[in-house]
Amino acid sequence: MEDIRISHHESVKRVYRQLHEMGLSNVWDRYEAQGLGTDPDQRCRFCMGGVRCDFCSNGPCRADAEKDKRGVCGISADGMAMRMMLLRNVMGSATYHYHCEQTVRTLRETALGASPFRIADLAKLKHFAARLGLDTAVPADELALDLCAFLEEDFARKSHEESLIVDLLAPAERKKVWRNLGIFPGGIYGEMMLATGSSLTNVDGYFVSLAKKAMRLSIAMAYQSQLVLESLQDVLFGTPRPHWMRVDLGVLDPDYVNILPNGHEPFLGFALVDLARNPEWQERAREAGAKGIRVIANIETGQEMVQRLEMDEVFWGYTGNWIMQEAVLATGAVDVFVADMNCSLPLDPVYAERFGFKIVPVSDLVAFEGVADRMDYDPGSAREQAVALLEMGIANFRERRERVTPIAGLPVGKAVVGFSPESITAALGGSLGPLLDAIKEGSIRGVAGLVSCTTLRDSGQDVHSVAVAEELIKRDILVLSLGCGNAAMQVAGLCTLDAAAKAGPGLKKVCAAVGVPPVLSFGTCTDTGRLADLIAAVGEALGGVAVPDLPVAAVAPEYMEQKATIDAIFALAYGLYTYVNPVPTVTGAPSLVRLLTQDLKGITGGVLALETDPAAAAEGVLAHIEEKRNGLGI
Amino acid sequence: MEDIRISHHESVKRVYRQLHEMGLSNVWDRYEAQGLGTDPDQRCRFCMGGVRCDFCSNGPCRADAEKDKRGVCGISADGMAMRMMLLRNVMGSATYHYHCEQTVRTLRETALGASPFRIADLAKLKHFAARLGLDTAVPADELALDLCAFLEEDFARKSHEESLIVDLLAPAERKKVWRNLGIFPGGIYGEMMLATGSSLTNVDGYFVSLAKKAMRLSIAMAYQSQLVLESLQDVLFGTPRPHWMRVDLGVLDPDYVNILPNGHEPFLGFALVDLARNPEWQERAREAGAKGIRVIANIETGQEMVQRLEMDEVFWGYTGNWIMQEAVLATGAVDVFVADMNCSLPLDPVYAERFGFKIVPVSDLVAFEGVADRMDYDPGSAREQAVALLEMGIANFRERRERVTPIAGLPVGKAVVGFSPESITAALGGSLGPLLDAIKEGSIRGVAGLVSCTTLRDSGQDVHSVAVAEELIKRDILVLSLGCGNAAMQVAGLCTLDAAAKAGPGLKKVCAAVGVPPVLSFGTCTDTGRLADLIAAVGEALGGVAVPDLPVAAVAPEYMEQKATIDAIFALAYGLYTYVNPVPTVTGAPSLVRLLTQDLKGITGGVLALETDPAAAAEGVLAHIEEKRNGLGI
Repeated sequence: MEDIRISHHESVKRVYRQLHEMGLSNVWDRYEAQGLGTDPDQRCRFCMGGVRCDFCSNGPCRADAEKDKRGVCGISADGMAMRMMLLRNVMGSATYHYHCEQTVRTLRETALGASPFRIADLAKLKHFAARLGLDTAVPADELALDLCAFLEEDFARKSHEESLIVDLLAPAERKKVWRNLGIFPGGIYGEMMLATGSSLTNVDGYFVSLAKKAMRLSIAMAYQSQLVLESLQDVLFGTPRPHWMRVDLGVLDPDYVNILPNGHEPFLGFALVDLARNPEWQERAREAGAKGIRVIANIETGQEMVQRLEMDEVFWGYTGNWIMQEAVLATGAVDVFVADMNCSLPLDPVYAERFGFKIVPVSDLVAFEGVADRMDYDPGSAREQAVALLEMGIANFRERRERVTPIAGLPVGKAVVGFSPESITAALGGSLGPLLDAIKEGSIRGVAGLVSCTTLRDSGQDVHSVAVAEELIKRDILVLSLGCGNAAMQVAGLCTLDAAAKAGPGLKKVCAAVGVPPVLSFGTCTDTGRLADLIAAVGEALGGVAVPDLPVAAVAPEYMEQKATIDAIFALAYGLYTYVNPVPTVTGAPSLVRLLTQDLKGITGGVLALETDPAAAAEGVLAHIEEKRNGLGI
Repeated sequence: MEDIRISHHESVKRVYRQLHEMGLSNVWDRYEAQGLGTDPDQRCRFCMGGVRCDFCSNGPCRADAEKDKRGVCGISADGMAMRMMLLRNVMGSATYHYHCEQTVRTLRETALGASPFRIADLAKLKHFAARLGLDTAVPADELALDLCAFLEEDFARKSHEESLIVDLLAPAERKKVWRNLGIFPGGIYGEMMLATGSSLTNVDGYFVSLAKKAMRLSIAMAYQSQLVLESLQDVLFGTPRPHWMRVDLGVLDPDYVNILPNGHEPFLGFALVDLARNPEWQERAREAGAKGIRVIANIETGQEMVQRLEMDEVFWGYTGNWIMQEAVLATGAVDVFVADMNCSLPLDPVYAERFGFKIVPVSDLVAFEGVADRMDYDPGSAREQAVALLEMGIANFRERRERVTPIAGLPVGKAVVGFSPESITAALGGSLGPLLDAIKEGSIRGVAGLVSCTTLRDSGQDVHSVAVAEELIKRDILVLSLGCGNAAMQVAGLCTLDAAAKAGPGLKKVCAAVGVPPVLSFGTCTDTGRLADLIAAVGEALGGVAVPDLPVAAVAPEYMEQKATIDAIFALAYGLYTYVNPVPTVTGAPSLVRLLTQDLKGITGGVLALETDPAAAAEGVLAHIEEKRNGLGI
């Protein structure tokens, strides 16, 4: 594929060329090989349209809406496409909630004194517990335990009973809409079961009902999984605050022992940094011939870490998002790749063999062919696990350094990271006032939450995400970036003060005045819940404006996997204009497309916007924002 | 398609011809229309092989094991096929456990005096509670509530904590195998989340690990969902006992008001029968011009009912399994189709319009395009819901009778139903001894549990199931039939004493001596759990023989949907020789096929056997059984 189809980032393009020349299987060549004919993007048209199904033995079936050709059971093209989308949503929810469950487990063990962690942000604990109606006038450990019990009771609530967490955390106007629609959820376990059970052959074949179930599930997930887990991670590891962070492949120095936590759950990552900051470990690394030992952040585990940890000699920097994972591993600078819960590629063990590093699954969700050893995370053993991983890295160093020729001279960039509702408020001098004033007087036209992954579909890694973000800030739309798309922004240099030069005049002025970049790094895809929370706070600060009436939008320029699909569904349930690219595999379902792109506006207020051109996509967001500004008379 | 591709049953073939002539969309014509070229069974070869994936936006992808062509993420053909199978397994588990949750809810409301039901089998309640270690020396209602609390606590156990239910109910030898393999499960909610989360892109790409997760889930499901729910349904509605039942389409008499509960959850079905047996309702039906009002059993809800309820003037008979659903609806004799949880076809509303009946979803899982009214089951309102359904039927009768020409003269058959571990023991005079003696001395070579659906893949409805069963009994293998495959046996006449004529000499002799058919109707697919329990009891009665060493097999001649896939996986985890047909969509995954058909034998003792010819399939079962007999020295 041509250069621009590889990546936005020079570092990645460079490593790709080496991989390609080596003939080593990599994501880019595999993408190209999937194309039908000579077009890498061309695939089976039934699969692309979402109108095929292989659930039962009467299939596999293909549907054709135009001819009303249905599956053997009688399901329509619309039903097929939405049912598969619902299953993807359940996959995303399961993974988010697994992370949440591990976080609750970690907080409980910490409160019991059985983990190496501590309650780092007591104020956050009290604040969050108070929002959930708990008595906060008890000792911190007791409060943490009460909170865990409260949360788990709600998770286990049946699907026909309303979730207390959602009731206590969601804006009143949304709750009314959701109740009227019958999509106010119960506990997340029951909701996952309801959605999955509905997807069975001959259960729910109606795309509208399936779409409503997806929204129900998304609401449960956003509040019970995302908002809970991020709040608890703040309690355990500190609430994000803005600071500088090194980024891009050049953060990997082959002369150091490099330990790379990777995935979405940062628990062992924090334990590793904590331990490696002890001079004793640095000394042990030097004894092994290295300059020291470093923990290098990656993907979403990395985002969780960088938003909460200052960089130093040990916690050195952040590489990037998942599409560049094989490039990271091919630098020849990796000693241990610590694979938690999500986002480690099936062929990573081939890279481990080739580039002389160890790969260790640390979550029972994760497995690789050819990797027998594992170290499933357990808060009670986290310190011992971190010790073992550091030791493994030190033991690995010399052989790796002797056997593997590293790629030298890869670039290092920088990014401001660590924006959160609390830190944005702090950066603005203690209240959202200055931001709201800038919106009201029009310097900032509105805010876009860029919650995205990275994909090779239709363009190279991060190419479309960066283009869309640049088009947005050019139109004076402030961007908050989350997820793998956040890494795109960071590595592309958009999370710097200098990037304000690319912003429109109004946003540029605000950036200079407040001293922030035009793209605020807001964390991981999991931070979507707290972004919703921030939006609700903005609506309230504006005097009780409903979510669909705010000059805001959700933007996913490069959605990739199943967590992204449930985030998008939540954005629609939340009443947001939601730009999604690539075009999801539902195009063979015309009634479903109409529901999502048109009819939903009159139901939840949400709109799904599809557009492959970055400027046109930004124009669509702007038009929506201007319409909302008009509605508000600003 | 030729006649034999429609159905084994004359009744169904006859109605099909009418539907086909009317040009009404039906499952048979839809099946034929899915064929590529002129072969109705030919479909996309990637879909048939299970080697395609559309989870993420880098796809849709196709894999080719021979060329080691992988998905964009790097997943292999084996990983793709097993991952999709795992997701199907989760779908099946979710639906089973939803049923279980509703059963627990019903028992609790009943114990609290808030449902129209009562504890019908106190001995069963005490027996089951005792197996779970509860103190049974308390009042029945209290015991029921204690049991519900105990069960729900176990369901909610985290996946890293062992399930107490499994520990208390499974055979010791199996538990040891499962612990050694790391597939001893936790609570079912956590297991579903673990399996679903593992299916995400870039999480678990290793087919062996995915297969182990499927087995883990299946163990949780078999004990926590199936065995619990059937035991609790016995408590509520009585433990099955053998009795005669009318079967086939002729049980529908158009001159009666006919109410058809359909699906898998029998709660409203029992409430309907209870109510309709009141002469007052019969009088109301006669006032509306009908001869009376009848509740007619269908599919698995029907199996749950017929195995526990004697037939009479009100509870008249059983129609058949799901493939014939449109034939049932087209008889012109239906007034209300009560669609619970599972197995109602998406186009049923078209039939409702055409054949003048009402269709009412009674589970929040179920929805149809074009049906707005619903009546989600709630134990506290079950009586009122049943009243409303009967009233709806009576109100519907006259118009239906005037507008719709019914199909007259459809056949009625009969079947002995109601075999369960308890009733088999009772039929044998109080112990399993006579059965074991017959096995030991060789009159019965072994036992096959036929747990199956019905499908049109490769043959007509029930054609292959009946053929396989006949081949088995001919070889002196006693058949216990469950699920939609059980309906195949019943309607085909194999659950009669006369059917012993088709059995081999040894089995024929035993049937005559004990007075049972050669195929024992053992309930629904959900009864798989108690079949496992019975097998364990047989092993114990034989002096502690491990499951894989018993002369038994699982047989699924026409598996169709996702519940069947998790049943088959459980059979493999349980150590059974498991015959499955049609060939599952995993044939593009050679290492997975080898694991399931060969290697697993040395791991759990289970073997997946594939064979499209009925006689050869039965020979395979017999060879396995004879090998086990040799091993036992009998």
